[in-house]
Amino acid sequence: MDVLVNAAMSADGKLSTVRREQVAISGPDDFARVDRLRAGSDAVAVGVGTVLADDPRLTVKDAALVERRREGGEPAQPMRVVADSRARTPPDARVLDDDAPTYLLVSEAADPDRLGALRRPGVEVAAVGEERVALERALVALADAGVASLLVEGGGELVFSFLEAGLVDRLSTFVGPQVIGGRDAPTLADGDGFLERFPALELVDVDRLDGGVVLHWRVDDGPEGGHRPAKEG
Amino acid sequence: MDVLVNAAMSADGKLSTVRREQVAISGPDDFARVDRLRAGSDAVAVGVGTVLADDPRLTVKDAALVERRREGGEPAQPMRVVADSRARTPPDARVLDDDAPTYLLVSEAADPDRLGALRRPGVEVAAVGEERVALERALVALADAGVASLLVEGGGELVFSFLEAGLVDRLSTFVGPQVIGGRDAPTLADGDGFLERFPALELVDVDRLDGGVVLHWRVDDGPEGGHRPAKEG
Repeated sequence: MDVLVNAAMSADGKLSTVRREQVAISGPDDFARVDRLRAGSDAVAVGVGTVLADDPRLTVKDAALVERRREGGEPAQPMRVVADSRARTPPDARVLDDDAPTYLLVSEAADPDRLGALRRPGVEVAAVGEERVALERALVALADAGVASLLVEGGGELVFSFLEAGLVDRLSTFVGPQVIGGRDAPTLADGDGFLERFPALELVDVDRLDGGVVLHWRVDDGPEGGHRPAKEG
Repeated sequence: MDVLVNAAMSADGKLSTVRREQVAISGPDDFARVDRLRAGSDAVAVGVGTVLADDPRLTVKDAALVERRREGGEPAQPMRVVADSRARTPPDARVLDDDAPTYLLVSEAADPDRLGALRRPGVEVAAVGEERVALERALVALADAGVASLLVEGGGELVFSFLEAGLVDRLSTFVGPQVIGGRDAPTLADGDGFLERFPALELVDVDRLDGGVVLHWRVDDGPEGGHRPAKEG
């Protein structure tokens, strides 16, 4: 599966403030770019932390892009995917509305009552992993559901898990014209961090827009760019 | 005083690993660029955390650059500055060697015995602030010592303090071709973080080198780019 991670970060690598409050990091040109990325993907994934903090819809906004998907024989909207080991997604989260189908990746440790409150037409629940979502298994399940291209939009915990598992092909970051700061603020890649073998990147392209810059990286999985052994995400 | 912050960070905004171990983020071209920045500065500053983690020398390495400084009537090496509220710099730190003069910024709360172990020819100690180094006062002291241009090389705590105090004119970051990750890893700007008014940046230039990119930002102190009220660094 083709996996692209895309996120907007401040000039100091933050996704939001220490209070997890969203900051307008990019602008209309980057929003349009992300909309095109969504329209070009079979599915769009976030972690439950992002759902709880931002309550995103994850849908394609531009009607022309939606129409183009339809004309190409695709579903109007890409599938939405939430990695949510403990089923903490609120039942009224926008990502569960009927604008697009949603795939909820949970673990076997998720509370059945919580899961019951989330099940509805258009929402598929898949338990992939004992205590936490195992991303390799999750991608197999998504592939079975017809997903060949996945856009991961964050947050930093999910991005780290994808990188740690060696599952990311490309990474694009909008680097914005502001400093958010904060030793406890969410960053592009959180988790436990790498200690020895760091995912190696190749800079493919640099685009200036919205007063900042988009860095397009290819993730190198070759012998020089090896990750640590994959483990559960 | 002209204050330039320069640091190398990974593609996800980290300065080092969660264990504070240095990572080869940039390469020879960026080292040469930093050497030129040092040679063009009256003083080079770091926080004590950087001294403890990396034990840097902070000197200009290229003999031709040193010679050019001499020919221009300047000291062979820029002054080294350590922001060290509690005088935690080890007496055998490289930054205290006799390759260049050193200015130790401490607070009045610093232990006199520790200070005694750091005093020596070529090391000036200035108490600026009660409990912590007050950066405004520090810059006044440095200006009195003849410093008109200051290069701040990190770490993230000192950079945040400088930004919070509204004292930074320019920010340049090398963004490297690797992911370090880690919710507890040091980032370009740590501290408590900004919550409302974020230092606004203007992207002046973008240079690709060493497989990464240098982003040159100007810090906007105008009405739209205001900082929160300055407080002690």
